[in-house]
Amino acid sequence: MTRDPDLQHSRTGPELRHSRTGVTRDARRPTVDSRAVQPFPRSRKIYVQGSAKDIRVPMREITCSDTRASTGVEKNPAVTVYDTSGPYTDPAVKIDILQGLTGVRDNWIGARGDTVQLDVFSSAYSRKRHADERSAELRFAHNKPPRRAKSGCNVTQMHYARRGIITPEMEFIALRENQRLDEYRDKNLLKRHTGHPWGAQIPAQITPEFVRSEVAAGRAIIPANINHPETEPMIIGRNFLVKINANIGNSAVTSSIAEEVEKMTWAIRWGADTVMDLSTGRNIHETREWIIRNSPVPIGTVPIYQALEKVDGKAEELTWEIYRDTLVEQAEQGVDYFTIHAGVRLPYIPLTADRVTGIVSRGGSILAKWCLAHHQDNFLYTRFEEICEIMKTYDVSFSLGDGLRPGSIADACDAAQYAELETLGELTQVAWKHDVQVMIEGPGHVPMHMIRENMEKELDSCAEAPFYTLGPLTTDIAPGYDHITSAIGAAMIGWYGTAMLCYVTPKEHLGLPGKDDVKDGIIAYKIAAHAADLAKGHPAAQLRDNALSKARFEFRWEDQFNLSLDPDKAREFHDETLPKEAHKVAHFCSMCGPNFCSMKITQDVRDYAKRQGLENMDEALEQGLEDMAEEFSRQGGGIYRKV
Amino acid sequence: MTRDPDLQHSRTGPELRHSRTGVTRDARRPTVDSRAVQPFPRSRKIYVQGSAKDIRVPMREITCSDTRASTGVEKNPAVTVYDTSGPYTDPAVKIDILQGLTGVRDNWIGARGDTVQLDVFSSAYSRKRHADERSAELRFAHNKPPRRAKSGCNVTQMHYARRGIITPEMEFIALRENQRLDEYRDKNLLKRHTGHPWGAQIPAQITPEFVRSEVAAGRAIIPANINHPETEPMIIGRNFLVKINANIGNSAVTSSIAEEVEKMTWAIRWGADTVMDLSTGRNIHETREWIIRNSPVPIGTVPIYQALEKVDGKAEELTWEIYRDTLVEQAEQGVDYFTIHAGVRLPYIPLTADRVTGIVSRGGSILAKWCLAHHQDNFLYTRFEEICEIMKTYDVSFSLGDGLRPGSIADACDAAQYAELETLGELTQVAWKHDVQVMIEGPGHVPMHMIRENMEKELDSCAEAPFYTLGPLTTDIAPGYDHITSAIGAAMIGWYGTAMLCYVTPKEHLGLPGKDDVKDGIIAYKIAAHAADLAKGHPAAQLRDNALSKARFEFRWEDQFNLSLDPDKAREFHDETLPKEAHKVAHFCSMCGPNFCSMKITQDVRDYAKRQGLENMDEALEQGLEDMAEEFSRQGGGIYRKV
Repeated sequence: MTRDPDLQHSRTGPELRHSRTGVTRDARRPTVDSRAVQPFPRSRKIYVQGSAKDIRVPMREITCSDTRASTGVEKNPAVTVYDTSGPYTDPAVKIDILQGLTGVRDNWIGARGDTVQLDVFSSAYSRKRHADERSAELRFAHNKPPRRAKSGCNVTQMHYARRGIITPEMEFIALRENQRLDEYRDKNLLKRHTGHPWGAQIPAQITPEFVRSEVAAGRAIIPANINHPETEPMIIGRNFLVKINANIGNSAVTSSIAEEVEKMTWAIRWGADTVMDLSTGRNIHETREWIIRNSPVPIGTVPIYQALEKVDGKAEELTWEIYRDTLVEQAEQGVDYFTIHAGVRLPYIPLTADRVTGIVSRGGSILAKWCLAHHQDNFLYTRFEEICEIMKTYDVSFSLGDGLRPGSIADACDAAQYAELETLGELTQVAWKHDVQVMIEGPGHVPMHMIRENMEKELDSCAEAPFYTLGPLTTDIAPGYDHITSAIGAAMIGWYGTAMLCYVTPKEHLGLPGKDDVKDGIIAYKIAAHAADLAKGHPAAQLRDNALSKARFEFRWEDQFNLSLDPDKAREFHDETLPKEAHKVAHFCSMCGPNFCSMKITQDVRDYAKRQGLENMDEALEQGLEDMAEEFSRQGGGIYRKV
Repeated sequence: MTRDPDLQHSRTGPELRHSRTGVTRDARRPTVDSRAVQPFPRSRKIYVQGSAKDIRVPMREITCSDTRASTGVEKNPAVTVYDTSGPYTDPAVKIDILQGLTGVRDNWIGARGDTVQLDVFSSAYSRKRHADERSAELRFAHNKPPRRAKSGCNVTQMHYARRGIITPEMEFIALRENQRLDEYRDKNLLKRHTGHPWGAQIPAQITPEFVRSEVAAGRAIIPANINHPETEPMIIGRNFLVKINANIGNSAVTSSIAEEVEKMTWAIRWGADTVMDLSTGRNIHETREWIIRNSPVPIGTVPIYQALEKVDGKAEELTWEIYRDTLVEQAEQGVDYFTIHAGVRLPYIPLTADRVTGIVSRGGSILAKWCLAHHQDNFLYTRFEEICEIMKTYDVSFSLGDGLRPGSIADACDAAQYAELETLGELTQVAWKHDVQVMIEGPGHVPMHMIRENMEKELDSCAEAPFYTLGPLTTDIAPGYDHITSAIGAAMIGWYGTAMLCYVTPKEHLGLPGKDDVKDGIIAYKIAAHAADLAKGHPAAQLRDNALSKARFEFRWEDQFNLSLDPDKAREFHDETLPKEAHKVAHFCSMCGPNFCSMKITQDVRDYAKRQGLENMDEALEQGLEDMAEEFSRQGGGIYRKV
């Protein structure tokens, strides 16, 4: 293996210094990115009140302008959208990265009375790290003492759900998923296509009881570690809005703690529902602490990465004890879900030998190497019940990793992939025995015509546990554009029933994503998730499309920008062609110029239809196409009828 | 309607001056873009020889490096890819935009003996324009006299096909579509997934006879105007590779002739199979001439745009005579296909009144306005047989326009859209009566779950004439990213059977695309088309994926870049993280760093499998998963079997 001395001196050395100000901008110190705390244009943060004072569900309300038509002024209702950005976009909240966020769930967790606050960390590594002077300057200063379940208690949302308890988290989620749909009366906004041949069964109104029942059935999870009270509760399940995850994290080669915290706030601004910290460099522990304390969305990790750091990258030296301590370390920091590659079993490893791209999952490779070195089965598999014990002590959810996922179109849906999937299904049943929440990771690289088969096999093998897929990429030939190759597959598998889509950035296969790449990846995945929500027939999904399209049709340019996923980009592109403010209210656009304006002409059609007494389509249909065709065929139009 | 005086003084005034050099760079003079004539890295233009000396089919051959493994050096075959870039990427051809390209089809057309060379243009407008001193300096200097069919002759490829004639164009296409697949022997490269639940029936080898039979049946078209001999023949049909179209063209507001010619050469470099010139500004005639004379791909237009210019933008003043002369004008310049919105019938217009976004097609709006103003049915419909007479005189193909396509998710698949589609089916039969080639334009904005229905209705209504869709966009909420919202729909509808995908650039709905936008749109659509080819089971499609994935797995970075759709971007992204040349042969990459290299670990798996005598999957499967599981369960792995 080539080693480049330059890589040993990367930007992962000590780079943080504490500051009382908390707002100074320094490339190496976690501060809040000013671009991440700006409210979106003409948007305001609103809170929908739940049954208790402290159930306040944040949403973003986008104000729209009036329509000024020949017939008078028409009001356009504000549009409420799901908001992952947390307190960062609420001007009423003072943000201080050095303090971390307020724990919105603190009282709920405390009130359940099934946890204890610890004096010391349970993990030996955590204790050692906190005693280490050398890492002091990297450390998040305001650590809270961790909680764990009281002896004999199980603190998972699934456990509560199965006992018929509706937690505040579940009520919060119900309000959040509904997006205030019941408050709309506008006929145009409420138009929607129903009847999807395949997909989810989403009720018209999400109730707290529906949330509970889906969690109890294992069809949905609420990633909500008791040590991450800062999370605004969210749900991952196919009968809810499709969620997306953004991966961040440094490697031995690049990126600092400050950059990763910035990427997190940046990612949630654009719509990441969860964030995975995949750091593999030094100071993983401290990086994660900064991220969790400042994150209003659930954080996922792959604990084997850190365990491997602890044995200096030598997979064969990994032990259950080191791994176990790592799980406890991360669980007490507040990680909400763990990717655990427990399905990479020794017998499956030779099945990958003939692949074009072997094992491409990092976790999968590490465990394969361990299995080979010891000629033993994966210790994550053999110790799985012990892992469940840890998970239920903190309510960490499983994200059962697909270590044998295909890394190329050629390797899609092969024996290794499906053998592992069967094992993940077997482990799901074990986890559920412990009331531990589970989702299942999926591929990867899959041609379009094999995507549905992946979804069906997952539902079948894993008893409908939520599927969480990476893409899939639908071709291998476009490095630099894999956010697009994979958005295609992601949208499709989201429609078929995948609950969460792990984003892919344009840098996939080429390098670590920077902030621009993170944004590009997220927008591509918000598109995929939303397209899937439309296709699944989610009752609230089409409303935003309708509002935006109406604004577009009526030349309300500012509204079109503000209702879009990325108002900045829409405005910037428009202004490249027609920069002047006046054009944003002009009744034509740059594509066609004043004479060709199809939108303008359509207004004439409406006026005509109105004169003809055909102001709505139903009436036109009633009058009957046939009648009308006859009327006009007298004018010479009928000659082709015989063809 | 607001009129901005600034728009009247846009960059569409006289901007071209002739030059003998042909290579001087001037923003306002058509010159060849130096970036467009550079061969791709490690690629060379090859010509596959047909049965006659002048049937030479251009392809691009990408050379790959050797694999250096522990077992020795393995040669990797060069990969041949479909090449739309024409002579521009052949260093042996001298490019001179002022002279235009050589007519590769000149002899074939002449040899058929069914055409005559004219002394004067048949179009009154063409004659007037050529006599006009004011446009002299804009004019392409090397006009050739136009051809037309001899009286009573029909010169369409469909006409030949139906008489059992295999034209040189058809042989050229067969060679081109095969991509030299039969020359590969490499087991890894030839791996492919077969068995697609829906889609095309593509033979393992495309023969000239198969091309002929598909054209004769109307399932495919060869856009090949006898006045555009510069085209390298290509085919549009669902049993062939999925094609993409790039729209270019200036408007009253922006862009000059020079820019449009540059956009064309830029578009074909990245993979545009056809280009539509949608200019609506002044000097449409001259812009088009420059584009056609320099284009090796078929050119499409929407003649109603120019007809409208001739009546100063007043739709109600359009007449059949003006339109007819425009068709002849453009046919004699060499336009290969015309979008004709003959399905926008008066009775259907009121069906759009209740839409969220009315009529969004420019052509559709113009004709709707005309119909309303005259209270008569669309003259393109009533004069359709006369139009067919023109089409068969030059072999211009119909692209029957979807003037009533939905402009938003809300309007998808409504009565207006499907009423028009039925009429397009009726007109297809009329065109086929004249042996005129036809494709059908499709939407637009369609949620994912309704895309297949669109394809099925088209095949059913239009007797399997090729479908040519714009996207469709799968959501309305992402202006600035509509290349992505639509690539999702395009990939799906391509799989379902759409023959050509009209690209959408990131600027859609916001402004006219510049060169970067053109490239972004094309790459997104090459991805969609290729993903569709994989899903359709095209025999040659997966080869490039396999070659690239193998290169990726073996850390042949340069090969990975060179085999990709956009080598420049892939290299640039890689170099942002690991800029040094040495890293391009490093056995790890920036994402994981040296310790985590999953690719490296996989090599260990192979070595292990080899030691175990399991070097290929078949053998592993033969030995049996069950046996292996048993072996390993003795080591503690079996405890979950009972779960």
